[in-house]
Amino acid sequence: MKLGIIGLGLIGGSMAIDLRRKGFAESIIGVEADSVNAAAALKIGLVDEITTLQECAASCDLIILSVPVGAAVRMLPEILDIFQEEIKNGNSCKKTVIDVCSTKEQLAKTVHYHPMRARYVATHPMAGTEYSGPWDAMPGLFDGRACIICNQEESSPASVHLVEKMYDCLNMRPIYMNAASHDVHTAYVSHISHITSFALALTVLDKERNEKHIFDLASGGFSSTVRLAKSNADMWVPIFSQNRDNLLKVIDTYIEKINAFREAIDGFDEDGIRSLIEDANRIKRIIR
Amino acid sequence: MKLGIIGLGLIGGSMAIDLRRKGFAESIIGVEADSVNAAAALKIGLVDEITTLQECAASCDLIILSVPVGAAVRMLPEILDIFQEEIKNGNSCKKTVIDVCSTKEQLAKTVHYHPMRARYVATHPMAGTEYSGPWDAMPGLFDGRACIICNQEESSPASVHLVEKMYDCLNMRPIYMNAASHDVHTAYVSHISHITSFALALTVLDKERNEKHIFDLASGGFSSTVRLAKSNADMWVPIFSQNRDNLLKVIDTYIEKINAFREAIDGFDEDGIRSLIEDANRIKRIIR
Repeated sequence: MKLGIIGLGLIGGSMAIDLRRKGFAESIIGVEADSVNAAAALKIGLVDEITTLQECAASCDLIILSVPVGAAVRMLPEILDIFQEEIKNGNSCKKTVIDVCSTKEQLAKTVHYHPMRARYVATHPMAGTEYSGPWDAMPGLFDGRACIICNQEESSPASVHLVEKMYDCLNMRPIYMNAASHDVHTAYVSHISHITSFALALTVLDKERNEKHIFDLASGGFSSTVRLAKSNADMWVPIFSQNRDNLLKVIDTYIEKINAFREAIDGFDEDGIRSLIEDANRIKRIIR
Repeated sequence: MKLGIIGLGLIGGSMAIDLRRKGFAESIIGVEADSVNAAAALKIGLVDEITTLQECAASCDLIILSVPVGAAVRMLPEILDIFQEEIKNGNSCKKTVIDVCSTKEQLAKTVHYHPMRARYVATHPMAGTEYSGPWDAMPGLFDGRACIICNQEESSPASVHLVEKMYDCLNMRPIYMNAASHDVHTAYVSHISHITSFALALTVLDKERNEKHIFDLASGGFSSTVRLAKSNADMWVPIFSQNRDNLLKVIDTYIEKINAFREAIDGFDEDGIRSLIEDANRIKRIIR
């Protein structure tokens, strides 16, 4: 299997490591717009060569599009166009392309009527760290996590099967959902936690001007709550923008909850504070 | 050294483990109101015996008050009263008592004029987890972290010296601060992160009624951001209540930051979102 990876950051790079190690990919071709990242990915050995999107799409059996979702919306139709060229040239096309982006609906709409739509599988592996770039790629990143596959009825069974096999190699559990539901549920669970973490960092940096105090007073608790605030703007700006409507609803609920704490604390209402905390503690049942 | 620990939870229990292991305490006497926790602490071997607050304060050289701060405000004067009895009985008193609570000003005010004030040292070791109870006590919890010592000029040099030696045994860095500053800075850095995490748990539990979705869609990022929402109400209700004024200020700043995100997302203002995220990213310089 000749694998192409477009975007050699944390996700693309970590996939390269494990898919090569498990024998799924015999050779891996990379595409990377940032020349420093491209050179690093080659040097680390994530990929065997760096090429262009056109050449990658023309020569690989499976292409992983692991770029920020704003770029993915532009690149995905280009890749499907290249697939279509092969058909026009009288060849058959057995290639498959997947994306690994955190929002799915805009991508789904963009290629819904593309004649090669069936060769695309929309996926979202639920794994990552707050770091980015090929040097942060790591083995085992996906191990045991869930991977969402969206609108699989629009993809060809052969492409879906190949992608399921690939995620099985990464030891991921597949979950099937339509793109619109995906975006609702990821806003509710994943995207809002990035907003709360960015806002926490901004608050602490604003109120506590003495950076040494932040360092000294940061217990493990603060470090873990603010961890996501280190996340990359290139990745998160288009996610927040594309998932606007769902995010606004969950932000409004979040502001209500913060205000409930504010009121209870302001009114010396210890029973009210206790009942909010005990309600929140129910998360223990779900997240160990 | 005969050590007394009042409150055998995560902090008291973890101190017991390391102070015995390092040879600082030859015997450890525990006081614990909850009979299940008391039996567990004995069974695990955290303490050699369980006794009453009165007997503990009368027989130990150093007493660690590791109970929620609401209880500490009641117990600390009782312990100093017992110290004073010894003086009244014509003996000298070389005992020391410390607390390990997360708010310091109310405790400081409560015993400011007590004749035995000098035998009390106010401390706050900046370590913990979201768990509580003697079974969650662990070795090395304090290793390499900061420990705040407040208003040390009100404590006798001998007591301060003993307490510094104890924290040195736990490999903690001492930081000196007055009680009022402590409460401002911990509100800014530590307490607000608990509020944001409780509110996140409430939001997700409210919006996402399907618990399986929460489990499936929770990447490592969500788990780490919501971790503190598992924290114990008995500990946090009195902290939020005692640190009300500082907390209200930092909650208001936090709501401003969340609203800034809301506005930028609502107005499709990608430059605005980017600039908020990049501002928040400055936390990387401080928290690795």
